[in-house]
Amino acid sequence: MVFVMDITKSKKFVPLLVFILTLTEIVLSGNVLIWPTDGSHWLNMEFILEELIQRNHNVTVLASSATLFINSNPDSPVNFEVIPISYNRRNIDSVIEHMIMLWIDHRPTPLTLWTFFKELGRFLDTIFQMNIQTCEGVLNNTKLLARLQEGAFNVLLADPVTLCGDLVALKLGIPFVYTLRFSPASTVERHCGKIPAPASYVPAALSELTDQMTFGERVKNTISYLLQDYIFQSYWREWNSYYSKVLGRPTTLCEVMGKAEIWLIRTYWDFEFPRPYLPNFEFVGGLHCKPAKPLPKVLWRYKGKKPATLGANTRLYDWIPQNDLLGHPKTKAFITHGGTNGIYEAIYHGVPMVGVPMFADQPDNIAHMKAKGAAVEVNINTMTSEDLLNALRTVINDPSYKENATRLSRIHHDQPVKPLDRAVFWIEFVMRHKGAKHLRPAAHNLSWFQYHSFDVIGFLLACVATAIFLVTKCCLFSCQKFGKTGKKKKRE
Amino acid sequence: MVFVMDITKSKKFVPLLVFILTLTEIVLSGNVLIWPTDGSHWLNMEFILEELIQRNHNVTVLASSATLFINSNPDSPVNFEVIPISYNRRNIDSVIEHMIMLWIDHRPTPLTLWTFFKELGRFLDTIFQMNIQTCEGVLNNTKLLARLQEGAFNVLLADPVTLCGDLVALKLGIPFVYTLRFSPASTVERHCGKIPAPASYVPAALSELTDQMTFGERVKNTISYLLQDYIFQSYWREWNSYYSKVLGRPTTLCEVMGKAEIWLIRTYWDFEFPRPYLPNFEFVGGLHCKPAKPLPKVLWRYKGKKPATLGANTRLYDWIPQNDLLGHPKTKAFITHGGTNGIYEAIYHGVPMVGVPMFADQPDNIAHMKAKGAAVEVNINTMTSEDLLNALRTVINDPSYKENATRLSRIHHDQPVKPLDRAVFWIEFVMRHKGAKHLRPAAHNLSWFQYHSFDVIGFLLACVATAIFLVTKCCLFSCQKFGKTGKKKKRE
Repeated sequence: MVFVMDITKSKKFVPLLVFILTLTEIVLSGNVLIWPTDGSHWLNMEFILEELIQRNHNVTVLASSATLFINSNPDSPVNFEVIPISYNRRNIDSVIEHMIMLWIDHRPTPLTLWTFFKELGRFLDTIFQMNIQTCEGVLNNTKLLARLQEGAFNVLLADPVTLCGDLVALKLGIPFVYTLRFSPASTVERHCGKIPAPASYVPAALSELTDQMTFGERVKNTISYLLQDYIFQSYWREWNSYYSKVLGRPTTLCEVMGKAEIWLIRTYWDFEFPRPYLPNFEFVGGLHCKPAKPLPKVLWRYKGKKPATLGANTRLYDWIPQNDLLGHPKTKAFITHGGTNGIYEAIYHGVPMVGVPMFADQPDNIAHMKAKGAAVEVNINTMTSEDLLNALRTVINDPSYKENATRLSRIHHDQPVKPLDRAVFWIEFVMRHKGAKHLRPAAHNLSWFQYHSFDVIGFLLACVATAIFLVTKCCLFSCQKFGKTGKKKKRE
Repeated sequence: MVFVMDITKSKKFVPLLVFILTLTEIVLSGNVLIWPTDGSHWLNMEFILEELIQRNHNVTVLASSATLFINSNPDSPVNFEVIPISYNRRNIDSVIEHMIMLWIDHRPTPLTLWTFFKELGRFLDTIFQMNIQTCEGVLNNTKLLARLQEGAFNVLLADPVTLCGDLVALKLGIPFVYTLRFSPASTVERHCGKIPAPASYVPAALSELTDQMTFGERVKNTISYLLQDYIFQSYWREWNSYYSKVLGRPTTLCEVMGKAEIWLIRTYWDFEFPRPYLPNFEFVGGLHCKPAKPLPKVLWRYKGKKPATLGANTRLYDWIPQNDLLGHPKTKAFITHGGTNGIYEAIYHGVPMVGVPMFADQPDNIAHMKAKGAAVEVNINTMTSEDLLNALRTVINDPSYKENATRLSRIHHDQPVKPLDRAVFWIEFVMRHKGAKHLRPAAHNLSWFQYHSFDVIGFLLACVATAIFLVTKCCLFSCQKFGKTGKKKKRE
């Protein structure tokens, strides 16, 4: 296929094309190491890997021997380095099942917040043990480490929900980039990434609040931040010891995580409430979305027994091409558990949603879509078929839902650079320049006390207090003297 | 000229090209109204105008009858609407001269800070009077206003150093975008744009500090913020009244300025210290920079008398093509007063600098370049020819200056989208979507008290105090009761 264009007739193309050619020239072919997290996280990350391969990079994935989706397909151009671990796929399934049940039973409302976090805290121990196994599987594996050293990697791309990717990068002496949806109450982003989050209008993750809060909601939001900080600071203590042990010097999890060159956040302003961020944060939500392909006629598989009560107009499928279905012009609404990947496919195609959130970021995601007028929520614990039907009727018949979904879709499509291209641009930037230190805020060099200027405020208040004290003393002294002189005069 | 490319051989071009084609399709031809500021501000803004015209937009500039550079060239495709005012070019020259002398005599060091601001405060009155004349020249001019209304403008682009552009936009019922280098201590950006600026690592404008501060410097920085806030809050009081009068309802300057859809800031991370910002802030520094053209042989004009003491190897020119000269491979160093435009040309071409700053942002600009290791400063008040020579020798002979200038140049050139394209993209975005409300932080709806969560903190502290009080009371009551019982038992 040959593409012919008369650029003398379209002046506006010239600078753009010249710029792209310049950019392309300096893109090098390099080696990228991947530290993934399983499940939907991997499904999203895979799109970045595909793009990196398209751009002639060699991609190696560090995957544990027990995995849900991270398959080492022999035809794939991706290299897989398997980390041997003792737990298996069933253990992971069980963890996920427990996590879902925890959320369904103790959804963090103001009344259940404390119970939820207490239960979650216990749960974090299991995750800690599994994560440590993965870490040890690399860091104590001299053969694997030596092989990785020989791999001459230029960058490590890590999903920090599975910790230790940063440690592996440090051991190999290479820069690393994070890809992340969120951490509870943005604990990691705020404390390790130094992103500001004013509690007055930036809702804490897992709070289901929006950027428009009443006084009561702002109190709840502040408590959410404090409580989640408290829980995760305790959780981090174990990690601080582990990180110090591995690096052979006293350090903290946050200090190491703070060395990330770029934070690729898996949302964008079509989904997020506008909030302050830093130049090394890039919002690349929806990077996996693609135009829909026409729906095939006999592609879907059917499995399992059809319930007898099922209506004649309902079909059951084991797997459907969700993106293509959402992009079909006849699709009216999307009933979703509210995962970020699915929500972004709905935003991309402008489809209003009925959300039945279950766990993790799902309730928050649906809260965002509700606030933007593109979704109705149904509570999984209390819902009846009537509720679901009403919700569905609302998003289909009330035109505002379709309008808002379309508006979000327009915002999503109207960016100077596509999210996937931005994500890969910054990974390649880090490869070209061996980092992105010019984007790193000096806040990393300050203690929390200095960061908030508490020392300066204390000093200035002490100065003012001293000044007031001295002035008062002088006044009193003068008054006394004047008083004495006055009395003396009177007496005379 | 025909451009032929076989895109089957270069897969990475396909998505980029498709994306550009999609973007180009939705770019509309619209009407842009410009509210400029004279001098170097205009020289920078002109590049945006040229690009807008290239992209088939109609551009109309509102220019006062007294102007330095804003010429209404009859061949230019730009329309000019002249605002009649009573002051003339000589008055503007005199204001600039006074401003420079004020800075040279009272450069804001810790010792002269207060005197400087007192003098500046007086000076602001003159600027206020001139600015008000320009405002009235439009807002009280019913014929001009009617003509503008007929112009069916889609967006107004304003340099907020000359106030009232926002008011004109509001009167016409169109969205507006700002282009801005800085306001003193980021007063406007912080208070009206809601951009966070932690005093611990974000140096106040005009402070000449960097992001790496000692305790003493952080005290100085905090005082800079407080002092400049105080001065400008008083200055704004007059504007608050004027804005309320024009809009016929009680409002403030900040409330109106806060309605800006996008803030185009004329710096980038090659120049700025990394700092928090908001999604409606776009850093487009160096948008005026272009590759150098070969230097012409007899193009430069010579004017004036040559001093007798001038060496044989020095030439005097009335005007030189600065960008082309800086881009010449034999250019070793750039002696500059430190204006943002010139600094960016030096960054673009990777030329180390000797800075002799005079006023406004110039001392700050040179402080930035010094901190990044690309410049040496010479003090205009105390310098000898020896000082200048030494500075020049340092930046030429010490290779670190050239290396750092080259590093900044690499950072500048390695962006996903060129600054000028980003600036124009967001202006066009506002035209396409009649605003960019999805980027506007909810902080605009909060009072400063609420923004900093002082009400929530107060409430939580009151709760804690009440709890402590109740627990103490209970304990005391129990002790008393227990004590009495104990005594009674003892007595028995």
